[in-house]
Amino acid sequence: MQKAPHTPAETAATEFDPNADRLREECGVFGIFNHPDAAAITALGLHALQHRGQEAAGIVSFDGSRFHSERRLGLVGDAFAKREVIDRLPGTSAIGHVRYSTTGETILRNVQPLFAELNAGGFAIGHNGNLTNGIKLRRDLVREGAMMQSTTDTEVILHLVARSQRNQFVDRFIEGLRQLEGAYAFVGLTNKKLVGARDPLGIRPLVIGKLDGCPILASETCALDIIGATYVRDVENGEVVIFDEDGFQSHKPFPPMAARPCIFEYIYFARPDSIVGGRPVYEVRKAMGAQLAMESPAAADVIVPVPDSGVPAALGFAQESGIPFELGIIRNHYVGRTFIQPTQAIRDQGVRMKHSANRAVVEGKRIVLVDDSIVRGTTSRKIVQMMRDAGAKEVHFRISSPPIKHPDFYGIDTPDADKLLAATHDLESMRQFIGADSLAFLSVDGIYRAMGEPGRDPAKPKYTDHCFTGDYPTPLTDQGMQDPSQKQLSLLAEAI
Amino acid sequence: MQKAPHTPAETAATEFDPNADRLREECGVFGIFNHPDAAAITALGLHALQHRGQEAAGIVSFDGSRFHSERRLGLVGDAFAKREVIDRLPGTSAIGHVRYSTTGETILRNVQPLFAELNAGGFAIGHNGNLTNGIKLRRDLVREGAMMQSTTDTEVILHLVARSQRNQFVDRFIEGLRQLEGAYAFVGLTNKKLVGARDPLGIRPLVIGKLDGCPILASETCALDIIGATYVRDVENGEVVIFDEDGFQSHKPFPPMAARPCIFEYIYFARPDSIVGGRPVYEVRKAMGAQLAMESPAAADVIVPVPDSGVPAALGFAQESGIPFELGIIRNHYVGRTFIQPTQAIRDQGVRMKHSANRAVVEGKRIVLVDDSIVRGTTSRKIVQMMRDAGAKEVHFRISSPPIKHPDFYGIDTPDADKLLAATHDLESMRQFIGADSLAFLSVDGIYRAMGEPGRDPAKPKYTDHCFTGDYPTPLTDQGMQDPSQKQLSLLAEAI
Amino acid sequence: MQKAPHTPAETAATEFDPNADRLREECGVFGIFNHPDAAAITALGLHALQHRGQEAAGIVSFDGSRFHSERRLGLVGDAFAKREVIDRLPGTSAIGHVRYSTTGETILRNVQPLFAELNAGGFAIGHNGNLTNGIKLRRDLVREGAMMQSTTDTEVILHLVARSQRNQFVDRFIEGLRQLEGAYAFVGLTNKKLVGARDPLGIRPLVIGKLDGCPILASETCALDIIGATYVRDVENGEVVIFDEDGFQSHKPFPPMAARPCIFEYIYFARPDSIVGGRPVYEVRKAMGAQLAMESPAAADVIVPVPDSGVPAALGFAQESGIPFELGIIRNHYVGRTFIQPTQAIRDQGVRMKHSANRAVVEGKRIVLVDDSIVRGTTSRKIVQMMRDAGAKEVHFRISSPPIKHPDFYGIDTPDADKLLAATHDLESMRQFIGADSLAFLSVDGIYRAMGEPGRDPAKPKYTDHCFTGDYPTPLTDQGMQDPSQKQLSLLAEAI
Amino acid sequence: MQKAPHTPAETAATEFDPNADRLREECGVFGIFNHPDAAAITALGLHALQHRGQEAAGIVSFDGSRFHSERRLGLVGDAFAKREVIDRLPGTSAIGHVRYSTTGETILRNVQPLFAELNAGGFAIGHNGNLTNGIKLRRDLVREGAMMQSTTDTEVILHLVARSQRNQFVDRFIEGLRQLEGAYAFVGLTNKKLVGARDPLGIRPLVIGKLDGCPILASETCALDIIGATYVRDVENGEVVIFDEDGFQSHKPFPPMAARPCIFEYIYFARPDSIVGGRPVYEVRKAMGAQLAMESPAAADVIVPVPDSGVPAALGFAQESGIPFELGIIRNHYVGRTFIQPTQAIRDQGVRMKHSANRAVVEGKRIVLVDDSIVRGTTSRKIVQMMRDAGAKEVHFRISSPPIKHPDFYGIDTPDADKLLAATHDLESMRQFIGADSLAFLSVDGIYRAMGEPGRDPAKPKYTDHCFTGDYPTPLTDQGMQDPSQKQLSLLAEAI
Repeated sequence: MQKAPHTPAETAATEFDPNADRLREECGVFGIFNHPDAAAITALGLHALQHRGQEAAGIVSFDGSRFHSERRLGLVGDAFAKREVIDRLPGTSAIGHVRYSTTGETILRNVQPLFAELNAGGFAIGHNGNLTNGIKLRRDLVREGAMMQSTTDTEVILHLVARSQRNQFVDRFIEGLRQLEGAYAFVGLTNKKLVGARDPLGIRPLVIGKLDGCPILASETCALDIIGATYVRDVENGEVVIFDEDGFQSHKPFPPMAARPCIFEYIYFARPDSIVGGRPVYEVRKAMGAQLAMESPAAADVIVPVPDSGVPAALGFAQESGIPFELGIIRNHYVGRTFIQPTQAIRDQGVRMKHSANRAVVEGKRIVLVDDSIVRGTTSRKIVQMMRDAGAKEVHFRISSPPIKHPDFYGIDTPDADKLLAATHDLESMRQFIGADSLAFLSVDGIYRAMGEPGRDPAKPKYTDHCFTGDYPTPLTDQGMQDPSQKQLSLLAEAI
Repeated sequence: MQKAPHTPAETAATEFDPNADRLREECGVFGIFNHPDAAAITALGLHALQHRGQEAAGIVSFDGSRFHSERRLGLVGDAFAKREVIDRLPGTSAIGHVRYSTTGETILRNVQPLFAELNAGGFAIGHNGNLTNGIKLRRDLVREGAMMQSTTDTEVILHLVARSQRNQFVDRFIEGLRQLEGAYAFVGLTNKKLVGARDPLGIRPLVIGKLDGCPILASETCALDIIGATYVRDVENGEVVIFDEDGFQSHKPFPPMAARPCIFEYIYFARPDSIVGGRPVYEVRKAMGAQLAMESPAAADVIVPVPDSGVPAALGFAQESGIPFELGIIRNHYVGRTFIQPTQAIRDQGVRMKHSANRAVVEGKRIVLVDDSIVRGTTSRKIVQMMRDAGAKEVHFRISSPPIKHPDFYGIDTPDADKLLAATHDLESMRQFIGADSLAFLSVDGIYRAMGEPGRDPAKPKYTDHCFTGDYPTPLTDQGMQDPSQKQLSLLAEAI
Repeated sequence: MQKAPHTPAETAATEFDPNADRLREECGVFGIFNHPDAAAITALGLHALQHRGQEAAGIVSFDGSRFHSERRLGLVGDAFAKREVIDRLPGTSAIGHVRYSTTGETILRNVQPLFAELNAGGFAIGHNGNLTNGIKLRRDLVREGAMMQSTTDTEVILHLVARSQRNQFVDRFIEGLRQLEGAYAFVGLTNKKLVGARDPLGIRPLVIGKLDGCPILASETCALDIIGATYVRDVENGEVVIFDEDGFQSHKPFPPMAARPCIFEYIYFARPDSIVGGRPVYEVRKAMGAQLAMESPAAADVIVPVPDSGVPAALGFAQESGIPFELGIIRNHYVGRTFIQPTQAIRDQGVRMKHSANRAVVEGKRIVLVDDSIVRGTTSRKIVQMMRDAGAKEVHFRISSPPIKHPDFYGIDTPDADKLLAATHDLESMRQFIGADSLAFLSVDGIYRAMGEPGRDPAKPKYTDHCFTGDYPTPLTDQGMQDPSQKQLSLLAEAI
Repeated sequence: MQKAPHTPAETAATEFDPNADRLREECGVFGIFNHPDAAAITALGLHALQHRGQEAAGIVSFDGSRFHSERRLGLVGDAFAKREVIDRLPGTSAIGHVRYSTTGETILRNVQPLFAELNAGGFAIGHNGNLTNGIKLRRDLVREGAMMQSTTDTEVILHLVARSQRNQFVDRFIEGLRQLEGAYAFVGLTNKKLVGARDPLGIRPLVIGKLDGCPILASETCALDIIGATYVRDVENGEVVIFDEDGFQSHKPFPPMAARPCIFEYIYFARPDSIVGGRPVYEVRKAMGAQLAMESPAAADVIVPVPDSGVPAALGFAQESGIPFELGIIRNHYVGRTFIQPTQAIRDQGVRMKHSANRAVVEGKRIVLVDDSIVRGTTSRKIVQMMRDAGAKEVHFRISSPPIKHPDFYGIDTPDADKLLAATHDLESMRQFIGADSLAFLSVDGIYRAMGEPGRDPAKPKYTDHCFTGDYPTPLTDQGMQDPSQKQLSLLAEAI
């Protein structure tokens, strides 16, 4: 999916939400074939994938003669928990999509799955990832008379399939895929088939599961667990999988390449109870925390996680260091909209709307704060201040991943490079900005070690890790465009 | 615009709404160029055209760099009276559309104006009328890889323009028009031009007006009156008009033909204060009533109009006959949804929700009920019964237009032929069905006489009048399709 | 019901709504006892009474053990047409209320019927009228520790009944009524009884009807007609009627007085098809128009009614004068919110949003405009201008009631005296303000003649006519209060 | 606040929400005096108290001349975060209330603060607690002619104050308090004063804070922390505090008694970062877990908290036992409505909608599950099963409070005694019901020890602990009523 521009509103939100300073996954996908409760199961699967996208959700089902589509802004549980919505999605096959909450082009026509009427029947598709040549392909298609419905890069694949002169759907789909560049995990639905595809490097995840004998595709295993489905295997990098009445087919239309899945699924995106690429995410995160404790120990009284994503790494750090783990920051479970901030003093303490210091743990103590990443650093700074206000004697900040110095173009919403704290500051100036007594990041080799490798092999890195290293694994065609006006996706501004 | 199927819900509504048994116009259009309040004026123009379509409304504006679109289900006054909506439609050019209220495919993606990003810029269009080869064109386009966004026939013209290989917009638009068959009045907006077009026979109306020196296009003159604009002239049949910074151009891309505007604009659709084709609609309707009084007089005490559309004809009938005009039926101005009908007796009297008998006028009297048309006859029957319940001694029913025997395919929502009372009943059995003491329709020659003609010349009929005569003025390509499944417009069912 | 203050918003609306310059009735009431569809029938009855109040509506039903209440802002057809709302109102007895649309205290806690838990059971009540000692009674009750729920004067009667020391409900109710001063038509519901009461002069109307043998109370007969109920008789002035399982009782707790019903029910408030005090309203209005034609004829070409309420009087004027009746003003049936007015010129012509001139009728003609009343005169002025803009040669304005010089305190929403055109201008300066070529009002004796009287007998006037004569029929206790701050009804501002 | 009846809907919800099987606090209160941002600060304070009530929230402000009230169903963050709502609450004093989410009488007229117009001015009040003679007082008041607006017991105090014959507000308020029995923490607002009151035993909490020199009242200190206010002291048991322009007064209208605060504030209700009665709640909970580990150790591999409320006790248990603490259950942060459950198998695993097993932690392990309480036991049973499904070898369930055997009548929503697992089962049958390998509760003496006492002194118990001991600290007048019909609070059923 195409990234939306960063707007002032988003910046404002940063001030009050500690999670606002995390990177954001942009999507999750789910599909099931030949099950009597296809739409209801898809809704549950999307609910389990909600952490991958909170902006909007959609489900398309096929009832044997017509496709049915429900797409809504907001959470899965708001729109798709109701019987009347599920009842409008009849049929035994369905795919679904959740999309990350950004401002900007948050409009219904961009909510996936997208749908096209092909000459041979309908085709719906949902996408997790981002094409690095999406704008170029779009420009070419419009020049040829294609009418775009959305401003997503996902729509490009629909037009490519619609315009293919091949006879078989699979051939048309693969002909389309071959023109794409970048990261993608697709789930698609035709009047006969459930299809899945993962880009040649397998940057974004996609797994195959089974429920009551029916095949499932999902971004993460947690979407299988919620419905009691069993995990079969991961879709491989560069693989196209097809499920239909005749069973299962696997296609490998690309030259063989070593997989390079995105390291951020392990650091932050995937749910801790998911198994990604065969590894339990919770255990990986604990290992990153333990590795960090070895690389950068601190003399302290308590280990305090930044909730919630810092918890596993903090447990790993605590167990490795032997220092007690305590909840020094309490999360408010009732977090809705941003409140009016009556005074400047309260505005300055914005983070307390969502978290508060647990003074009983912090006061008079030397604490190690453990978090999984620093993006802009604005929230980290507020949290350190909150700890000091609550009486912490020393605050040592430990980050269980390396410094983020380069933006992503594969479906992670990163700020521009000049907004990335680590792209513009050295370690000491970062420490000063954050206000900690000490600051340390996990090393790049350290993160590979937590994954069970001896370290990073620059000749054959096993993960997509360009945010730390600048080593982008694919061409970045759209980034090379000279004329920035060519990046404008649409002349149309429409709210709905 | 493509007709939607008749559904049970619509039939149910028929029982309670006397207006439910009228034919329905399917759309109205409006456009203005180069005025600082383009969107607000368009909203007022659409409000004046609301009688042409109550299902949905939309406005597209252009602000010099981007197009802005707001499309909503419901009345213009509900969606477009508010400042915040108008403020989302900046720019000095705008077009708008109102659409008739049907059930079925009432979905946002069908609400006009539709919009396309052409290679050379954006193009928005609104349509009043119906293409008689719209399904065939759609099928051809999909076969060539076009992706349809809506189930309207209007979208076809967008794709034809998008795919044209001509360089100039006007040439591309005309190349598209030449492939169309049927009735249309288009208003379109590009990043440079306001365009209008009327089909070769001028079946649907379109007028040119002027406000503060800025050109306007509108379906009827009442949309000029509401904003104090002046009427310039009608767009001619087969004419394409273009307004841009360089002024005005007129194109006549079709071979010259005599105009045949739709006679129903005079009988029922146009607002009584509009001037259509140079004739005041109110005076034409009075003349129809007077002609009817001459052709089919009745010995009676009072003339009672069926409100509101029967009023001008009833006044003409009363003035011609010398019998007093009285409000024997009172309209309830507060008519919202259909109420729950607690008892069968109340259900049987459904019409009283919206109208009631004025017993003081009716009781003990011989009355002439005057209405403009009979479609299914179900409401006429209830009204006659209501008059009898209120004590009428005799009820003579007079209809100020001929019997409707043939369906329309040019933008009027008629029921199938077997639902048209006059298609399946002779005059006497119609009288019995309705329960009147006498029944008479205006003759076909009579209606031409009310228009100032000596009668209908079958060799050169001056109006589109096939509903009475069966004389369709264009080919009906889509009607000739063998396979009814080919008429299915979309595999997608989507509520929004 | 207590009058709400006039606010700027209301003034603004005046500019665009010709009906904004009419007096407004403030309520309508309905009740039914012992019918299986009590709530659904009450909804229909209220719908027929909608012209008496468009601000809000409410229904209370009793199911044998509990009372159920649904009260909503907006029209009956919006809130009470739906099955799910009616289903929340189970039981065989129900009362309902519609309330006039004002700004100011339009809040849910003021929507009637109001309800109180008495020691002996529940009591719900709806009120049409206004107490002239309501503020004094309220002040006394609060001083004694009563807690007020609303700012309506209706609530006073609930507290008086709650605090009565009598044993029987009827005795408690009558004890309460005896403390009231002013105009009221009440319908009430207890766990055993449907009750009705009309003030000693019978200022506001209330009729008894019957459906399927079940008793009904309603403000007007049109609420009986809509459900096919039969009219039994009017509740008499000063009468209390009780319907319960034991049948019907009538109480006359006040000294006998001659009735003085409000003359405005005939002039404007009642629906034309209602029979009020035994007289058909439509015929009375035609008689007023005919009387006006005799008193103040005009040499003219056409008679044009100001729609819709001027139509019967215009017909009477036309029939008496022999001048043709024509629709010179066309009403737009789709009138919702007030639109944004883009230009000053359009603002100046505000009336055209809701009405437009029918130029074909008006141009070059001498016209007589007939309306039922003039309040502030602002709309009349715009209508005259609209006629002149449409080409009228002469405009003669005729009003089918006398000049309104005095405010009302009995349930009609009149502006303060200094806003009443006739209170501050003589006839000639009114004519100049309105811009007509001539202006005439019906005389006070003339209106009595249209009612079948020889004229007004100042010693024993048969109608409440103080707006014309200044002759108020009851004391005006609240008007005599010295301290205006004592009129503040509540310290609480609450939107819902 | 009066308890609402338990309905089937609530029972259904129990199946899917592990928190559904906890006791529920019924309210939180907040008030501030003389601060320019009174309403905005109150909204933030209520947000911090949201865990005490999620059904509804309300704020009343006083602007020097009028009171303003906004009351809404739903969360504080939904209704009161918006500027337009806060802007409708002008003034420098405000009080607010959050209410627990139950079904049944969830209606707007019950949402607090309630408001009354007294003869001397307005009075708004919010209540945390429950009166044990509320129904009796209500019955007496209605008999005397009082009209009840709500079905809350809170309203009783308003009527008592309204009816008092004393001159000074404080005297009237105290006269009202003296008639009450049970538990209460009140915040009230008059046109001059902010008042607080705590029942003679101090069962429900209430603290005094200060922000920018302005006094604050709040249920918990976390409501002070969120706005950066400082804690001053707790309101004492039986104390009435008054803040006005003249400063501060304290009244002690009751005979001196030893305080007996509710032990459940420490076990479950209060936020872990609050300081209640001078003790940090987080530390108390850890101490309960540690005490439990001493009383009932288990041979296990990991300690797993039932999130989120079991976490502090689990940490205490882990630190005391030396067994590692691990997140064996992952909470889904996106929990909205109850989803449709497509299959019986999924229905049976309902708990997984909100939590899921972290197989990497659990599989093949002996685990100790730590939770804070068991009410009905239905959720505990599902959690044990979820652990076994994830491969746990042994499951030892440890509860950091004693068995709940008796219902509460002081503002905690407990099920009837026959629904309390511990009231109907002995330890072994509870273990079997839950399906654990072992089960242990903290002892009553143990919980006193965790509070720093040597144990419970039956002669002078320091806490309200009747749920464990049956020792109710006040009379239970309403429970003694013979006629259950007398408990019906209202004859009126109204949705809004």
